[in-house]
Amino acid sequence: MSSGVIAWLTDFGTRDAYVGIMKGVALGIHPGVRFIDLTHDVPPQAVAVGALVLRSAVPYLPDGTVYCAVVDPGVGSARQAVAVSTDRASLVGPDNGLLTPAAEALGVRAVHAIENAALCRPTVGHTFHGRDVFAPVAAHLARGAEIASVGPALLGLQPAALPAPVVEAHAVRGEVIYVDRFGNLLTNISAEALGAFRTDTLSVRVAGMATAPLRPAYAGVGPNELVAVISSWGTVEIAVRDGDAAQRLRAGIGTTVTVAAE
Amino acid sequence: MSSGVIAWLTDFGTRDAYVGIMKGVALGIHPGVRFIDLTHDVPPQAVAVGALVLRSAVPYLPDGTVYCAVVDPGVGSARQAVAVSTDRASLVGPDNGLLTPAAEALGVRAVHAIENAALCRPTVGHTFHGRDVFAPVAAHLARGAEIASVGPALLGLQPAALPAPVVEAHAVRGEVIYVDRFGNLLTNISAEALGAFRTDTLSVRVAGMATAPLRPAYAGVGPNELVAVISSWGTVEIAVRDGDAAQRLRAGIGTTVTVAAE
Amino acid sequence: MSSGVIAWLTDFGTRDAYVGIMKGVALGIHPGVRFIDLTHDVPPQAVAVGALVLRSAVPYLPDGTVYCAVVDPGVGSARQAVAVSTDRASLVGPDNGLLTPAAEALGVRAVHAIENAALCRPTVGHTFHGRDVFAPVAAHLARGAEIASVGPALLGLQPAALPAPVVEAHAVRGEVIYVDRFGNLLTNISAEALGAFRTDTLSVRVAGMATAPLRPAYAGVGPNELVAVISSWGTVEIAVRDGDAAQRLRAGIGTTVTVAAE
Repeated sequence: MSSGVIAWLTDFGTRDAYVGIMKGVALGIHPGVRFIDLTHDVPPQAVAVGALVLRSAVPYLPDGTVYCAVVDPGVGSARQAVAVSTDRASLVGPDNGLLTPAAEALGVRAVHAIENAALCRPTVGHTFHGRDVFAPVAAHLARGAEIASVGPALLGLQPAALPAPVVEAHAVRGEVIYVDRFGNLLTNISAEALGAFRTDTLSVRVAGMATAPLRPAYAGVGPNELVAVISSWGTVEIAVRDGDAAQRLRAGIGTTVTVAAE
Repeated sequence: MSSGVIAWLTDFGTRDAYVGIMKGVALGIHPGVRFIDLTHDVPPQAVAVGALVLRSAVPYLPDGTVYCAVVDPGVGSARQAVAVSTDRASLVGPDNGLLTPAAEALGVRAVHAIENAALCRPTVGHTFHGRDVFAPVAAHLARGAEIASVGPALLGLQPAALPAPVVEAHAVRGEVIYVDRFGNLLTNISAEALGAFRTDTLSVRVAGMATAPLRPAYAGVGPNELVAVISSWGTVEIAVRDGDAAQRLRAGIGTTVTVAAE
Repeated sequence: MSSGVIAWLTDFGTRDAYVGIMKGVALGIHPGVRFIDLTHDVPPQAVAVGALVLRSAVPYLPDGTVYCAVVDPGVGSARQAVAVSTDRASLVGPDNGLLTPAAEALGVRAVHAIENAALCRPTVGHTFHGRDVFAPVAAHLARGAEIASVGPALLGLQPAALPAPVVEAHAVRGEVIYVDRFGNLLTNISAEALGAFRTDTLSVRVAGMATAPLRPAYAGVGPNELVAVISSWGTVEIAVRDGDAAQRLRAGIGTTVTVAAE
């Protein structure tokens, strides 16, 4: 059941009126709809980054939320527009991997191609499906439309292009997959992947050089010291207490990270 | 009739609390009001850019929306504060050309000077009419106040300072009037201005040098190739597929653009 | 009584989904809650800047607003999480001085430590109390919970680390405490501190060098000229009409400012 909330994630930025236009279209269809902006500052056309940020948010929004995500370098080409129903929410967007990690975390029930023109704007252009397709379909779903009404069922979603960590006998090897606004380095190494180790004796090595102790909180080290924590995403994060780890370590997306006994 | 929605467009940015303050003032007057942010990132005091972004949005928001737009280098001077009623919506802001293209697109019915102090905050300062004048008047209109209640009727709005394209026998000459977040170059050449030509044989020349074919969608060319499309604004746009045309062509606002047969 | 509105102020930025996650948590607790974003662009961990921006906004939001402010370099350490009731509103955040100027302006009634786990998320981590503590407590308050339900009363709030102006016989000496998006220099010299002087004869000296006349509005000087006004914060502000004073004067937070008779 819909909660009447649409949560947006795009790479549209907030300089132009693109986001406001999508919201205007949605309000025209469902005047009672409410909005949450996850972010509109995904780097342009960075589908994998968008997929990660979307995945990071879905555990925390109300059941019945309709996620409308648009990072869509293939707009106007043959890539499929889809709507996904899951155990707890619905998702709408291009089928390019953007929705996949979030949909899997939410428990995919069905994937449908968006082909029902009656749920889209009367004229669908080739450059802005956020306005013409995704926003109106999200608004119809938020108002209670059945997922099957959007079009025929598909077998599944395209996979996301995300690297997996490697679990070895004495170490887990992964990499930085996201750098947040504080310069914290978020990795693809989940707390679960560390299950076999005693976490109070672990340290995290970044790019084979700098080493950070794994602590319960940033405050587990002194100011300006390097520390690793289990992030709010549930994965290993490398930070500088009250500072910027990306800058300090000259690290970024793709930097290798190894967790091992101290 | 008001939809109870205020759509904001300003150059206030989102670093300071100015936008939140305007919304707080509006909520105090009309607790049921709802908000859409078009953008707050118009470059400081760039009235023409604000006018274009506002114009780009108005076709897509619900009927009855109250637009509150503030790009106001003349705050505290003699420039007039106005409210405009149109066939589909109302607009509130300074009379410096900011509202004009949007109001004309919506069909101007009446323009009124804002002079009724009862609709403004009790104390009107000289530096922040967004808070003291425009937000409260917009909230009153969103709650159903008549446009004539704001003050006396005026003959019209100040014109916007926007360049017009030149239509010749074999070409249309215009210029770049906006660069969006993706580096796409938006021009002042509308699809209508190309009406006399067969659009499947047209090409677009930028700054007299680079040439892009006019295609239905970005995907009409290969990755990283230059392409022209009819933008979501309804005007000729020059883009690089999956890239940044402004950077590639070192083009920006004012760069000349010519559309002609190939 | 709660107005059902939560006003947010954080240093989380809008690139990541942190803000959307807090809103999602709040909506899950109080589906009717409404949001105002004051800003999420406080510089990372700049508690004093956050305190000033929050203070600047509170006079203008509806009575009953719940302010949820998170600039929290000490997250996971011993710093206290608090909820404050005032004559006109409630505030929730870390007790590190962030809330203090705003709370004092609103008239502090009671300060309570947040210790009631039933009002927080089931699992409280060490890195993101905005999500696990402050957003859920704010949502409960916005829904009508009593302030005393959050935990035991405290004697007061930690003071904010803000410089005070010095009032002398013939001058008031202060400093720049904030630079806004337009490059306007906001000082800690309030209009009240100038009470003994006749304001139509005052001038403002910045860094002991450039001098600006104090005028009722920016338009009190010619374009591109330096001017001082009483800002929308109620304090002396130095601006360049239609320009950027911070850039022109190479001034920033901490630059000395003196107001004296011309």
